[in-house]
Amino acid sequence: MSLKIALAQTNFLVGDIVANVDNLIKVANHARAELNADLIVFPELAIIGYPAEDLLLRRDFIAAANNAIYQLAERFTDIALVVGFPELDGDKLYNSAVVLHQGVVVARYRKQALPNYGVFDEQRYFVPGDGPCVFEFNGVFIGLTICEDVWRNGIIEATRQAGAEIVLTLNASPFNSGKIHQREDVVCQQIKAAGVPLVYVNQVGGQDELVFDGASFVVDARGEIIFRAAEFEEQVSVVEFVGNQPIKTICAPLYSEIAGAYQALVLGIKDYVRKNGFQGAILGLSGGIDSALVLALAVDALGADKVEVVLMPSRYTQAMSIEDALQQAEAQGVKHHVIPIEPAVNAFTGMLAGVFAGTTKDTTEENIQARCRGVILMAMSNKQGKLLLTTGNKSEMSVGYATLYGDMAGGFAPIKDVPKLLVYELSRYRNGISPVIPERVITRPPSAELAPDQIDEDSLPAYAVLDPILERYVEQDQSADEIIAAGFRREDVARAITLVDKNEYKRRQSPPGIKITSRAFGRDRRYPITSGYRGLVP
Amino acid sequence: MSLKIALAQTNFLVGDIVANVDNLIKVANHARAELNADLIVFPELAIIGYPAEDLLLRRDFIAAANNAIYQLAERFTDIALVVGFPELDGDKLYNSAVVLHQGVVVARYRKQALPNYGVFDEQRYFVPGDGPCVFEFNGVFIGLTICEDVWRNGIIEATRQAGAEIVLTLNASPFNSGKIHQREDVVCQQIKAAGVPLVYVNQVGGQDELVFDGASFVVDARGEIIFRAAEFEEQVSVVEFVGNQPIKTICAPLYSEIAGAYQALVLGIKDYVRKNGFQGAILGLSGGIDSALVLALAVDALGADKVEVVLMPSRYTQAMSIEDALQQAEAQGVKHHVIPIEPAVNAFTGMLAGVFAGTTKDTTEENIQARCRGVILMAMSNKQGKLLLTTGNKSEMSVGYATLYGDMAGGFAPIKDVPKLLVYELSRYRNGISPVIPERVITRPPSAELAPDQIDEDSLPAYAVLDPILERYVEQDQSADEIIAAGFRREDVARAITLVDKNEYKRRQSPPGIKITSRAFGRDRRYPITSGYRGLVP
Repeated sequence: MSLKIALAQTNFLVGDIVANVDNLIKVANHARAELNADLIVFPELAIIGYPAEDLLLRRDFIAAANNAIYQLAERFTDIALVVGFPELDGDKLYNSAVVLHQGVVVARYRKQALPNYGVFDEQRYFVPGDGPCVFEFNGVFIGLTICEDVWRNGIIEATRQAGAEIVLTLNASPFNSGKIHQREDVVCQQIKAAGVPLVYVNQVGGQDELVFDGASFVVDARGEIIFRAAEFEEQVSVVEFVGNQPIKTICAPLYSEIAGAYQALVLGIKDYVRKNGFQGAILGLSGGIDSALVLALAVDALGADKVEVVLMPSRYTQAMSIEDALQQAEAQGVKHHVIPIEPAVNAFTGMLAGVFAGTTKDTTEENIQARCRGVILMAMSNKQGKLLLTTGNKSEMSVGYATLYGDMAGGFAPIKDVPKLLVYELSRYRNGISPVIPERVITRPPSAELAPDQIDEDSLPAYAVLDPILERYVEQDQSADEIIAAGFRREDVARAITLVDKNEYKRRQSPPGIKITSRAFGRDRRYPITSGYRGLVP
Repeated sequence: MSLKIALAQTNFLVGDIVANVDNLIKVANHARAELNADLIVFPELAIIGYPAEDLLLRRDFIAAANNAIYQLAERFTDIALVVGFPELDGDKLYNSAVVLHQGVVVARYRKQALPNYGVFDEQRYFVPGDGPCVFEFNGVFIGLTICEDVWRNGIIEATRQAGAEIVLTLNASPFNSGKIHQREDVVCQQIKAAGVPLVYVNQVGGQDELVFDGASFVVDARGEIIFRAAEFEEQVSVVEFVGNQPIKTICAPLYSEIAGAYQALVLGIKDYVRKNGFQGAILGLSGGIDSALVLALAVDALGADKVEVVLMPSRYTQAMSIEDALQQAEAQGVKHHVIPIEPAVNAFTGMLAGVFAGTTKDTTEENIQARCRGVILMAMSNKQGKLLLTTGNKSEMSVGYATLYGDMAGGFAPIKDVPKLLVYELSRYRNGISPVIPERVITRPPSAELAPDQIDEDSLPAYAVLDPILERYVEQDQSADEIIAAGFRREDVARAITLVDKNEYKRRQSPPGIKITSRAFGRDRRYPITSGYRGLVP
C-alpha cells in the first residue's frame, strides 16, 4: 500500500485569510493534479500566517479563520488536507490542525506544547491541548503534532503509543544561524527514540523581524533524513510511503552558515518590501561597509531597478568614501543621487547659534549631520513610496553608536541583527559570488565620518573585542564576571555592557530588522528602558 | 491580641536591587520605630521592581536578588517583613513572597496565577506555585497571595480553607482609568465570598509605559473597605487587627476619573525623568492643545525651572498660535525660545529640488517641516541632557496623523495613550485648578499647521466621531460590522480602521508613553506590521 504525502512549504501573509485560503487551494490542487499526492500537509496556522500576534485576540478574525476552515473542507474530495488554524471552542482558543477529507473534518489535533519564550508568546493566546491525535488514512495510522511539540520530550512517543505509524508535524520555525542543524538534530533524536517516521513541514518567508527558512524534511523510523526541501524557497514536494516506510529521495544540500545568513537577509528584505507593497527601496550609501552590504543585499532581493541610493557627503566625508560609493552604485547598476548636506547643516547651525552660544561642540553637532541625512532620505522615501532601508548593524545597535532619527531613520533595518564582524564576512562572501563591494570598503578602518579623522575605535573597543563581549552579554546573558573570566579586559567589558544597558531607549525606537542570531533585539529581548541594572559590574 | 500590619506602598526602581534593599530597610525601620508595626508588607517583587522584563532571564540578576533576600532576613529581629522576590529553585523561577522574621525565613509563598495577557508576560519567566501558604504570627494565622491570585476565583477561598484568618496580597497592579473601582470591586467580591479580611499592598510609581497607582487598602471579613492609602503617592500606613478584625481607620478619598488620569500622567512623567537621570524636559510648543497640555503636565511633574519650550513657527503658523504659546509659557514661568524653521526648510527644499523636479507637493513637504522641528528639538535635548517630550495624542497615534522623526521625535510621549477628546477634558480640568492654558487653544479647531488653512478635520473624521470608533476598534477589538451596527457611518469606520491597520509601522518606532486606557499601544497591543488584515471591512 503506497501513500504519497505532499509537503507544502509555502509562504503566507499574516492576517490575509482570503489570500491564504486561495493559496492553499492552488497548492493542494497542484499537489493532487501534478504530484498525485494523497494527502498534503501545510505549515502551522497556515490559514492566518505566523505569528499573527494580537490579531489572535480579535473575535472577527478568529471567526473568519474558523469559517474558512470549514468551507475549505468542502472543496476537496480526492486529496486530504492537513491545515493549521486557530480553533475556537467556546471561549478557548487552540493552536490546532485539522485533517480535511471528502468534505469533512476527519481529525483534529490541539498543540500541547505552547512556546512562551524568545520571540514566542503562544500562552498569551492559546490554551494547550491535552493528548495525542491519531487518525486512519488509506489504512495507515497517522499522528499529528505541531512545532514545539517535537522539541518537548514525550509527545512524539505518546503519539506513537497512541498508534501512529507516521507522525506529521506542522511548523512555523524561524531561522537563526545554526538553527537548522539544531532543529534536525532534535527531531532525529526524538525519532530515534520513538522509532516512527516523521514528516516535518515548515513555512518559508519573511514576516517583520522573522524569516522562516523552510527546509522541510522527512525522517525515517531510524532517525535518518531521507528528504529535505530547499531552504528559503517555496516548494511543494511529495514523499512516497510504502506502509510506514518513506522512500528515500532528494535531499536539498544545506547552505553554509554564512550563505544561509545571506539568504535569510535577502528573503527578509524581499518579503518585507513585497508584503508591505513598497515600490522599491532607497538607502544612503556612505562608502562604508554597512551601507555597502545593505545595497548588495537589496539588489539581490529586489533587483537593481528597484533600488536607489543617495550619497550625502559632508565636509568630513573622505574622497575615497565618495569614490567607493559611486563605484559600487555603478557596479550594481542602481540609480544614484549625490546631495551634499552642508546647506541644511549650516541652516541648523545658524538657527541654533543663539541657544548654543557659549557651549562646546559635542555629539550634538554630529547628530545634526546624521539627522540632516535622515530628513533627505525620508523625503525621498515619502515622495516615491520606496522603503527606506537603514544600515546600522547589531554592534552599533547594542552600544548605541547611532543617531536616533538620523542614520537610524528608516522603515526596515536589514542588518540590525548582524554583528560588525559578520558584516565583513557577509561582504566577503558576497564578493566571492561576484565583486560588487569595492575592496577598499572592506579593508579601511570603519568610521562614522561625523568629525575630522574619526574612526569607530576612538569611541569603542575594537570590533574583534567588542563583538564577542556583546554576544556573551546580549545573546547568552552572561554576567560581567563571567565575561571577564573568559579573558576579556575589565574596562572593555564594563564599557561595552554599560553602553548596552544605557541604550535601550534607542533600540526601542529603531525600525524592525531581520533576526539572524540566537537573540535579536525586539520581541526576542525585552528590556525595560527605565532600569537601575547596570550589568552588575563589580 | 493586637497585631499591627504596615502597608508599604513604595516606589522602587526596576533592576536596582541595592537601592531597593536600602529602601526596604529604611521603610521597615520607620514602620517599626515610628508606627509600632509588628509586620510590614511590601509590594510584589519589590526587591527587583516590577516589571523587570527580560532582566529576569539573567542568572546574575536572579542570584543577586536571592542573595539580597537572605541577607535581608538577618537585618530584622523585631519586625516581620513580607517581601516579594524572584525565587530560584533549581532551574525553576517563581514569583514568590517570603516572610522574614527573627533572622530567618518563616514562610514562603509562590504565586499561583501568572498573568500572561495585556502588558503581562509572567509565563515567559515564572512557573506557578501549587498551593496556598499560611503561617502563624503572634497567634494569628496569616495567608499569602500575590496580585493575579486575587483576580482568579478559588485562591483566596483555598487560602482561607488552609486556615488563614487574615490574607495578605502583594501587588504590582498598574493604573488605567476606572481600574481602581474594578480592582476594589473584584477584591471585595472575593472577600465577601471567602469571609476573611485582606490586606492589599500595591506599589506606586512610573515605570516606562506603566504607572502604578498605589491606593493600597484593607478589607474586613464582610468585604468592606476599612482603610485606603492615597493614590499616586508613597505612603507607609499601619492598620491594627484585633484578632482577625481590622480596626476601621482613614480611607483616602478617590480622585475623580479625570483627576486620576491627570495624576497618573504627572507621576509617569516625573518618574521617567527622575529614574532615567534627566536634567529636565524640553518640548515644542505649537499653540495647539496637545503641546499645551503636555507643558502643563510637565510643569506640574517637574517644576517650571526644569521645563523649557521652543516655538518653531513656519509660514503656515498662524499669529494666534504664537501668541497663545507665548502666553502659556509666560503663565507657567518656563524658559522659552523662538526658532523659526524657514532656513532649514528652505535648505532642504533647495537640496531636494533636483530629485523632486516634476513632482507635485504632497505630505512629503509637510513632513519636512515637522522633521526640521524634530532636528531642532533633538539638538537642544542632546546639548542639555534634557528629555524631549513628544506631544502626540492617542487619536493621532492610532491613525498615523503624525510625522515619524518629526513631531514623533522624543524620548517620552506623555499623552500617547490619551485620546483627543480626553486631551480637551484634561486641559479644562487643569485650567479649573488654575488657568494656564489659554482659552483659545481649547476652543479653536485643531490644526497641524503644515499647509495653508489646514485643519485636522480635512483629513480625518471629527474627533467626536473618530475617538469612539477608535476606542471600539483598538481597545475593545470590535469588528467593523459591530462598530457600524453601533451607529457609526460605514465610511468613517472604514477610514478610521484602515488607517489604524496601516500605521502600525509608525507606532513601532514611537517613544514610550503612559498607559491610561484599558489598552495602550506598545506592550499592551502587539500587532504585526506586515499584515494582510485590514479590519475585515465588509
